[in-house]
Amino acid sequence: MATSNSNPPLKDELDIVIPTIRSLDFLEMWRPFFEPYHLIIVQDGDPSRAIKVPNGFDYELFNRNDINKILGPKASCISFKDSACRCFGYMVSKKKYIFTIDDDCFVAKDPSGKDIDALSQHIRNLLHPSTPYFFNTLYDPFSEGADFVRGYPFSLREGVPTAVSHGLWLNIPDYDAPTQLVKPRERNNRYVDAVMTIPKGTLFPMCGMNLAFDRQLIGPAMYFGLMGDGQPIGRYDDMWAGWCVKVICDHLGLGIKTGLPYIWHSKASNPFVNLKKEYKGIFWQEEIIPFFQATSLPKECTTVQQCYVELSKHVKDKLGKIDPYFVKLADAMVTWIEAWDELNPLDSKKGNGK
Amino acid sequence: MATSNSNPPLKDELDIVIPTIRSLDFLEMWRPFFEPYHLIIVQDGDPSRAIKVPNGFDYELFNRNDINKILGPKASCISFKDSACRCFGYMVSKKKYIFTIDDDCFVAKDPSGKDIDALSQHIRNLLHPSTPYFFNTLYDPFSEGADFVRGYPFSLREGVPTAVSHGLWLNIPDYDAPTQLVKPRERNNRYVDAVMTIPKGTLFPMCGMNLAFDRQLIGPAMYFGLMGDGQPIGRYDDMWAGWCVKVICDHLGLGIKTGLPYIWHSKASNPFVNLKKEYKGIFWQEEIIPFFQATSLPKECTTVQQCYVELSKHVKDKLGKIDPYFVKLADAMVTWIEAWDELNPLDSKKGNGK
Repeated sequence: MATSNSNPPLKDELDIVIPTIRSLDFLEMWRPFFEPYHLIIVQDGDPSRAIKVPNGFDYELFNRNDINKILGPKASCISFKDSACRCFGYMVSKKKYIFTIDDDCFVAKDPSGKDIDALSQHIRNLLHPSTPYFFNTLYDPFSEGADFVRGYPFSLREGVPTAVSHGLWLNIPDYDAPTQLVKPRERNNRYVDAVMTIPKGTLFPMCGMNLAFDRQLIGPAMYFGLMGDGQPIGRYDDMWAGWCVKVICDHLGLGIKTGLPYIWHSKASNPFVNLKKEYKGIFWQEEIIPFFQATSLPKECTTVQQCYVELSKHVKDKLGKIDPYFVKLADAMVTWIEAWDELNPLDSKKGNGK
Repeated sequence: MATSNSNPPLKDELDIVIPTIRSLDFLEMWRPFFEPYHLIIVQDGDPSRAIKVPNGFDYELFNRNDINKILGPKASCISFKDSACRCFGYMVSKKKYIFTIDDDCFVAKDPSGKDIDALSQHIRNLLHPSTPYFFNTLYDPFSEGADFVRGYPFSLREGVPTAVSHGLWLNIPDYDAPTQLVKPRERNNRYVDAVMTIPKGTLFPMCGMNLAFDRQLIGPAMYFGLMGDGQPIGRYDDMWAGWCVKVICDHLGLGIKTGLPYIWHSKASNPFVNLKKEYKGIFWQEEIIPFFQATSLPKECTTVQQCYVELSKHVKDKLGKIDPYFVKLADAMVTWIEAWDELNPLDSKKGNGK
């Protein structure tokens, strides 16, 4: 799967967004794969702390001061002191595709011992259709050596455009704090050689560690919410985005894939700190999931922006009863769309690339 | 994964159902795995042709004459000269679990070169819960070294009872005739080390080549329809069963898993013969799938039998318009349930094991 970078795919159409970079090793390890691309680094903490980027990379760095300057009062929708701030990078990018990765994620090896070029696999996932309306038992029918199996309706084989490619993690699995506490030594060693479409109507837990998406198709829904400094919750940024994105993709006829590529997740975050961040979310998600499962959007919503603003109203109405936080979040969702449209005026005019 | 058979799992609770046996090699190859179990062989063709079973196996053989004798006029619901007749074996079994396999399916090897004990993996799948209400990105959370990932609601982690375990095939994939014709040399070499629950509300193409199920939970819905001699269609027996079973499992809160174990599918059937059998099905499935997607069963249906009889009415009403075949099939569905209840009177009284 590892490919040479003499001809990197979609070089001028993809940005890599990284929430922050705490170690030089990270970019050095990814150099053969990332160097051809433009990096957008969104610093999640103290703007006065310097972030070092090794020579040879083409990058922009945004800290809190930059975000405040660019968005003005609308900067309130971007989280502070939390990796959720990465979504600011999605907004300022001008490219069609985004790949986002955490700085504790390194290059993994496939079972043959080869380095996995995660970016190439994500691009492959995004450039091939998804099949959300019927399950294919041999997984992605567009993988090499695979196809649709007997009994798969022919009218559904064209598929739908793929909006999101959700990659996985070897070594440290993405567990919540209670599971981390109970299974401190668990490691993910299982390399599952599959990509699959998450069926229509089914929600999934989207992790932002190793994620790619088509910004033109779904970008305005990739909002990572209000987390971190001053907020009652953390570690639900990518989950929140995933639930919103899935409902909107289902409504607009777009696909989400999960599976390959793997990255190597190097270190587990502190389960005690995580429990503090997740505590309220553990209760809230019991009401949030049924809410998203029951939410349906009206036919009149034909762009991602329209869907997202409509969804924000449902959030305020239905989840506002759980906690005032959701009223604030619903307002921030609207602010996010306003800021997105301000920075991407053409995007909005051309009906979101559709 | 291959285990010693000194202590075969569920020895007294599982029957192996085989539609017919055309080669002695088949049972010889499976001997270490199948010998501890009772075999039910349902001969699909000419009753005067002898089927040879090697020494050492505990088996019953049913041919057409036996079926006619046991079921009387109700034998009309069992297909003749087609492997769909295998479902008669599900009906006469007295065990809790069924494993069914085709006689051109041999023992496969896992990536380490070990023989795969398909039966053990099916049993493992059936004995662990399914999770149809939310997608787990690390696949079966009950596999060794896996769990529910961050964001998976805790209230859904108990799961639901697993009714069906759908295994896959290395070597010859289960393709329809058009795909066989277009890709005559395609082989499935991808060993995907995963088991997953098919989400609620999603239909899948169930293949009868390598299939296990909990007869007490879902047996009466495992009817393989009217195929073969005198029928306008073939090769939709397992598909039909799969669509009915999925709708009923979704209604009753039962789970269906797909993935491991693999068997080695040795030879492709003739694509020209298959095209003849499938021809009408290729058109019909375009209407059958939307029909099953739209079908919902009333709350009053609380047993598999009730669900199945109710479903037969929908089939007659909605699919009867496509072709008179579906009227005949709907009647056969009712006859099947009557025959099932006649042979399994206790089963019906105890509300199908629930």
